[in-house]
Amino acid sequence: MMNTPLTVGSLLERAEKFFPKKQVVSRTLSGIHRFTYKEIGERTRRLASALEKLGIEKGDRVGTFAWNHHRHLEAYFAAPGMGAVLHTINIRLSPEHVSYIINHAEDKVLLIDEDLVPLIERSKDQFKTVEAYIIMTDKDELPETTLEPVYSYEKLLRESSPKFEFVKNIDENDPAGMCYTSATTGNPKGVVYSHRGIVLHSFAFGLADTAALSETDVVLPVVPMFHANAWGLPFAATWFGSTQVLPGPLFTPKLLAELIDQEKVTFTAGVPTIWLGLLNELEKGSYNTSSLRSIVCGGSAAPRGMIKAFETKYKIPFLHAYGMTETTPLATVSRLKRYQIGLEEEEILDIRSKQGLLVPGLEMKVISGNGEVKWDGEEMGELLLRGPWIADGYYKDERSKDAFRDGWLYTGDVATVDEEGVIKLVDRTNDLIKSGGEWISSVDLENAFMSHDAVFEASVVAVPHEQWQERPVACVVLKEQYKGKVTKQELLEFIAPQFAKWWLPDDVVFMEEIPKTSVGKFLKRALRDQLKDHLVQNS
Amino acid sequence: MMNTPLTVGSLLERAEKFFPKKQVVSRTLSGIHRFTYKEIGERTRRLASALEKLGIEKGDRVGTFAWNHHRHLEAYFAAPGMGAVLHTINIRLSPEHVSYIINHAEDKVLLIDEDLVPLIERSKDQFKTVEAYIIMTDKDELPETTLEPVYSYEKLLRESSPKFEFVKNIDENDPAGMCYTSATTGNPKGVVYSHRGIVLHSFAFGLADTAALSETDVVLPVVPMFHANAWGLPFAATWFGSTQVLPGPLFTPKLLAELIDQEKVTFTAGVPTIWLGLLNELEKGSYNTSSLRSIVCGGSAAPRGMIKAFETKYKIPFLHAYGMTETTPLATVSRLKRYQIGLEEEEILDIRSKQGLLVPGLEMKVISGNGEVKWDGEEMGELLLRGPWIADGYYKDERSKDAFRDGWLYTGDVATVDEEGVIKLVDRTNDLIKSGGEWISSVDLENAFMSHDAVFEASVVAVPHEQWQERPVACVVLKEQYKGKVTKQELLEFIAPQFAKWWLPDDVVFMEEIPKTSVGKFLKRALRDQLKDHLVQNS
Ligand SMILES: Nc1ncnc2c1ncn2[C@@H]1O[C@H](COP(=O)(O)OP(=O)(O)OP(=O)(O)O)[C@@H](O)[C@H]1O
Ligand SMILES: Nc1ncnc2c1ncn2[C@@H]1O[C@H](COP(=O)(O)OP(=O)(O)OP(=O)(O)O)[C@@H](O)[C@H]1O
Ligand SMILES: [Mg+2]
Ligand SMILES: [Mg+2]
Repeated sequence: MMNTPLTVGSLLERAEKFFPKKQVVSRTLSGIHRFTYKEIGERTRRLASALEKLGIEKGDRVGTFAWNHHRHLEAYFAAPGMGAVLHTINIRLSPEHVSYIINHAEDKVLLIDEDLVPLIERSKDQFKTVEAYIIMTDKDELPETTLEPVYSYEKLLRESSPKFEFVKNIDENDPAGMCYTSATTGNPKGVVYSHRGIVLHSFAFGLADTAALSETDVVLPVVPMFHANAWGLPFAATWFGSTQVLPGPLFTPKLLAELIDQEKVTFTAGVPTIWLGLLNELEKGSYNTSSLRSIVCGGSAAPRGMIKAFETKYKIPFLHAYGMTETTPLATVSRLKRYQIGLEEEEILDIRSKQGLLVPGLEMKVISGNGEVKWDGEEMGELLLRGPWIADGYYKDERSKDAFRDGWLYTGDVATVDEEGVIKLVDRTNDLIKSGGEWISSVDLENAFMSHDAVFEASVVAVPHEQWQERPVACVVLKEQYKGKVTKQELLEFIAPQFAKWWLPDDVVFMEEIPKTSVGKFLKRALRDQLKDHLVQNS
Repeated sequence: MMNTPLTVGSLLERAEKFFPKKQVVSRTLSGIHRFTYKEIGERTRRLASALEKLGIEKGDRVGTFAWNHHRHLEAYFAAPGMGAVLHTINIRLSPEHVSYIINHAEDKVLLIDEDLVPLIERSKDQFKTVEAYIIMTDKDELPETTLEPVYSYEKLLRESSPKFEFVKNIDENDPAGMCYTSATTGNPKGVVYSHRGIVLHSFAFGLADTAALSETDVVLPVVPMFHANAWGLPFAATWFGSTQVLPGPLFTPKLLAELIDQEKVTFTAGVPTIWLGLLNELEKGSYNTSSLRSIVCGGSAAPRGMIKAFETKYKIPFLHAYGMTETTPLATVSRLKRYQIGLEEEEILDIRSKQGLLVPGLEMKVISGNGEVKWDGEEMGELLLRGPWIADGYYKDERSKDAFRDGWLYTGDVATVDEEGVIKLVDRTNDLIKSGGEWISSVDLENAFMSHDAVFEASVVAVPHEQWQERPVACVVLKEQYKGKVTKQELLEFIAPQFAKWWLPDDVVFMEEIPKTSVGKFLKRALRDQLKDHLVQNS
């Protein structure tokens, strides 16, 4: 067979060639803009040509610090298209983390959203490698800034060539992108994506049995473009010629509901907190969401009650998926097998709330002390993954040797596997609660709380305990209308029938908000810190 | 990213692991048999182990001479699974072609269906490399045969290990399979498939925008397993865990209709002559075909009238696809773009009867003397293809240098491209009719004839002509009930409004049957030979 390499540039070329009239709808500070793939293609080539003039060479890192919009999409293809490396930086990281990863990745140019310039200014003195700042703004003038040298994105584009040719003769194993993990468990770790990995992942994303992403879809990635490549959506959606709706800065549930309604979105993806917010919004307003054929939810466990609400109340098919920054990220998707299609609603919900079946192309193993766990839905073990879109190490990082061993990625996620081969995550290794020598899964307890009508969010963490080593404590946020009207005791009684007695939390702490990570996951580290003396004081 | 290779063995491993209970339904001489993927997996490993004992080593060719059934499927995975090369031999080739390709491929072992043994016996004295014959029979005893040494498939399996491990550390570019073209235009040419090519092709086959093959499908490949890997279906269907229905020997339209009805087939694939036969059968009998969600049709142009009958009369979605043995084979699929979905029925049929849009992962170019043709649906040129599942040469064959140039496959197919990037094949370069310096497309004329109620099949070929060099002559087979009731003149008048006058055939020849190739395509070479003096005598 021909040894044509799999390249990221070729994904956009397909859209330019076969879907030139299809659109990318982009919301920026100045409103909604519409670009065809033909225009996106030309603008991307102009950007690559501009970056070249600024001295970007093969293998150099180009950082982005931006929301989801068309310019960010252009950077997604311009950097790999010219043989450089796209480094998407999480705009919600602390200033220390921002300068840490920019220096660690050795970014040479930074593409920054106008409204995010202050966040970069406050760290800029720490930067060791950045040679130029490009500001992505709709305006003709640049904002006042201390960044230097500084360029206007649109001005650079105007001065550059729309005919720039993407590199062809690259090794498909060359780096195309990089991203640092969301730092739920510690300092961010850098993951490098190859052209091959991104293209194979895009194939996997379009399979009928995974996300089935199609040209006929109108795709709205709520997941930020700095969070594991927006789960690969910009690459796959461009390749397939899907319409894209990029929601831009300062995004609210209301805006999400409106965009779905107005743009007839068929496919959207994001973390559970987003969907909890959307549910809330749908209850308040009156929106037409009938165009939606798939909500992809990952990043944290999707609560069963939430899935039920979407599927039964709003008739929106819900797709629970699992992945990591280290896995490009799609690793499992929950779908019914043919012989499960006729099951009862509750059984179907049980399946849908699991993380699902391994995506074609990957290998998995769940191991505990005694080797591989039994596929009985009971025995827990750490999930190991292998395959061509799984990282083989962290970028220049000591921690590689812990997570990457014997050719496998040790995910740090604890799972059971049922008879169907479907995995269910019970916790992160760090979040499991060890009570008197036995494991308690915080995820199961959280799901039980969140199925109570009064509960908006719940997170269960391990709190040190003299006698039992650790005991679970539940942190609960009540819905507005239930505040002050529900007691701890009621909640504990509500979940009690589902668990052995010793699993029940020792306490329920009501909160205004659960602290979250930069991408909207429950930040259990913070809760554990906050509650570390909770049971000592109480005893 | 990890450098795990893409291997054919891993496709079956996924079915064994995640779909052990799903079934392969196999029809053999003794009736219908059902095997789970767990059983198929064990039997495949036993076969690999048996082949190893017979001396098969990495890179050796294992020939199959068989219908579509479970044992053939086992060979599909056993040979590549052990690092050997599966060579599927077309059972309908002439004895000369059979010994030519067996010697050319240097097959070491042949796996032969019981009822096909006589076809091998008549050529066996020519074989130079075959060291063992394995007979695939349901019976305990072997049939009487002059082949030697000869083994019973089931007996070998019983004596071998179900735990054989597939090779892991192979180069994904190593050969996994090979197949010779159907010899429509001359001697068969050998194509070698790599592991990488087969796996990438399987990804492409599962995309929502191509065939969307899924675990939930019940797949019946009518296309023979010796014809371009049954278009990749056995690989992809096994990988995704789809139910497979393998129709076995001496297959009729009646049997096809019955299997679709009884096994609730959702997905089937084959050449147009098969579907013409099925249409005929559906009109006679009473079958429930409501389970079908997709008929994939390729290998020759699908007549518009036939597509219309399936889509409007039987409500069976019809998918016209194009490919070659050299392209593993899927290259284009005809689907509507989002903005075409609301078009009128006739416009939709126009799109559906074209060969379609290039599959993600490939590149194309249509060239005429003046470079790339305009995408206007008018200008004709030769179709060139490139990509990771396109062959880069014929196996040890002089003809490679004609077909493979500057990194492209010259398909020998003449196409137009419309504004949407959709290709329409107008002819093979060899079949185009050159009349007075202008090209006439035989395919368009054939389609016009076949849309007449009385016409069962029509083929238009170039016949030498003194004044015009070549002129078109139509060969027409009438449906039973119309025989003797329709005149040449009527048919010519029927098609006349659609064409310029000089396109109209000089004559219509009624025939009992149109000669076909080994895989059911019109054999225009034979027609041209037969008619070469037709216009000379007439003038
Ligand atoms: N569907 C899901 N259900 C439960 N947990 C999930 C799901 N999808 C992802 N996760 C969790 O998210 C993790 C991957 O997240 P990501 O790569 O964004 O960074 P992180 O692990 O949160 O941060 P860090 O690795 O820096 O601590 C997984 O390892 C898993 O713990
Ligand atoms: N959908 C289609 N419409 C029209 N023609 C098609 C279609 N699909 C395939 N073909 C024709 O079939 C050819 C590929 O067929 P295959 O590889 O089986 O061998 P062949 O070309 O018929 O034989 P040989 O190359 O030995 O002469 C294509 O090159 C094309 O001419
Ligand atoms: Mg992590
Ligand atoms: Mg051919």
